[in-house]
Amino acid sequence: MPNKHEFPANEKKGVYRAILLRRDIRSQFKPDPIPDDVLARILYAGHHSGSVGFMQPWNFILIRDSEVKKKVRAGFERENQAAAQNYEGERKDKYVSLKLEGILEAPLNLCVTCDTERGGPHVLGRNTIRETDLFSTCCAIQNLWLAARSEGIGMGWVSILKNEEVKKILNIPATVIPVAYLCLGYVTEFPPRPMLETAGWEKRIPLDELVYFEKWQEKNLKDLDQFKSLWKDLEKEPFS
Amino acid sequence: MPNKHEFPANEKKGVYRAILLRRDIRSQFKPDPIPDDVLARILYAGHHSGSVGFMQPWNFILIRDSEVKKKVRAGFERENQAAAQNYEGERKDKYVSLKLEGILEAPLNLCVTCDTERGGPHVLGRNTIRETDLFSTCCAIQNLWLAARSEGIGMGWVSILKNEEVKKILNIPATVIPVAYLCLGYVTEFPPRPMLETAGWEKRIPLDELVYFEKWQEKNLKDLDQFKSLWKDLEKEPFS
Repeated sequence: MPNKHEFPANEKKGVYRAILLRRDIRSQFKPDPIPDDVLARILYAGHHSGSVGFMQPWNFILIRDSEVKKKVRAGFERENQAAAQNYEGERKDKYVSLKLEGILEAPLNLCVTCDTERGGPHVLGRNTIRETDLFSTCCAIQNLWLAARSEGIGMGWVSILKNEEVKKILNIPATVIPVAYLCLGYVTEFPPRPMLETAGWEKRIPLDELVYFEKWQEKNLKDLDQFKSLWKDLEKEPFS
Repeated sequence: MPNKHEFPANEKKGVYRAILLRRDIRSQFKPDPIPDDVLARILYAGHHSGSVGFMQPWNFILIRDSEVKKKVRAGFERENQAAAQNYEGERKDKYVSLKLEGILEAPLNLCVTCDTERGGPHVLGRNTIRETDLFSTCCAIQNLWLAARSEGIGMGWVSILKNEEVKKILNIPATVIPVAYLCLGYVTEFPPRPMLETAGWEKRIPLDELVYFEKWQEKNLKDLDQFKSLWKDLEKEPFS
C-alpha cells in the first residue's frame, strides 16, 4: 500500500541520520561563528515545534558576550564540584576527568526558557498536566538539536547549572524557567558514540528491555523477537 | 568554508520538512496497522535520543487492545469536560467543538514513561536539576514524532489525562511517570497548519518577539532585522 505522506528515501535518511548521529558536544567546538542564515534556520526549526494548546512558551536568548559566558561557566564549576562529591574512588576520578561543557569555547550559547504564564491562566491541554509547558519547550530543544546536526553544527546541553544563578545572570523574571543552557558551534568531529558510552560511564540499554505491550512489564515474546531482529538490522546500518 | 559534517541538500531538506510538516494528529487517523519494520525504526529513533547522564529513563508501552484504549478514552472524557469549565460563552462553544484526541481511531497508542530511579541515585548531570530525566524523555518523544512524520505516520499527544489514572490502567509503578500518551497511525492528511491555528484558537507568535540577545528582553535591532528578513524568506519556502 503506497503512502503518499512518506518522505522520499533521501529525505527519510536525513531524518534518521540527524537522530542517530546527533551528539551532546562538549569538547569539539571550533571558534568559527555560525552564519546568520544557518542560525536563522535552526531557530525557525525550534519555534516550529508543537506545543500544548499552541502556547509556544519558549524564548531564545542568544549569548555571545564572553563576560556573560564566564559568569555562567563559574556557576557550572561550583555545581560540578558539588556533584563530584556524590562519587568515590575510581568513579570519582573518572567523573572529574570528564569534560561536561563547552561554554567558553562554543561561539554561541543559547538559553531556551519556558514562560509559565504564556497564553494566560487556561491554556488548552495544560489544565490536567501543568508541566506540559516544560515538555513543549523540550520538544523545541530537540528540534534545535536535529536541525543543527543537519547543518553540521554541534550542540551541547549544560545541565549542571543552578536555575536561580542562570536567571540572575540573564535577568530572567521569576515566572520564567531557563529549561536549557545550550552551546552551539562548528565541530572538529561528531564522535561516533555518546561520550559517556565511550568513556565506559554507562551502557546503552537494549531497546527490547524497554518495550512493553498493553501494560507495564508485559512482554509479548513473539512480537518482541520480531522487533529484536529488525533492531539488529538497524544496528548494522548506522545511517552514517 | 566547506563543512564536511553538513548533510547533503536532500537529507537536510528531510530534517526541515519533518520539523515543519509535523502535526499533532487527532482527527485524521486511518485504521491500517503500522508495519513492524516501520514501528521498529520509529522506536529506535526514540531510544537514540540523548539523555542527561546517558540515563535513558524511558520505556515504551505499545497499546493495541481496544479495552485498554476505552479505559483511557473514558479518562480523557472526564478531564476534558472538567477543562471545558474554564471557558465561557463563545470560547466554550469553540472548545467543546475541538477534537483533541484520536485514542480509539489510532491503530496504535503508545505511552512513553520516565523512570525517576533509572540509573541509580546519582545520575551524572541530574544533581542540580532533578527534572532532567523528564526533559530527556521529551527529547525522545520529539524523535518519535519526527521519525513518524518522515514515515508518513501521524502522531498525536493526548495531554488531557490524569497521570494517576493512566498509571492505574497500565499498572505503572509509583516511581515511574507517564510523560506522554501518544496516538499513532497512517492519516488521510497532514493539515497544512496546526489545528488550533486554523481554528482561530491561537496565533503563531512572530519569532522575532521571542529572541533576545545576551539578556532577557534585550534586543539587538540590527541583528534582529537581519534575522527577520531571513525568516520571511523561510516562510515563503515551506519545504512542502
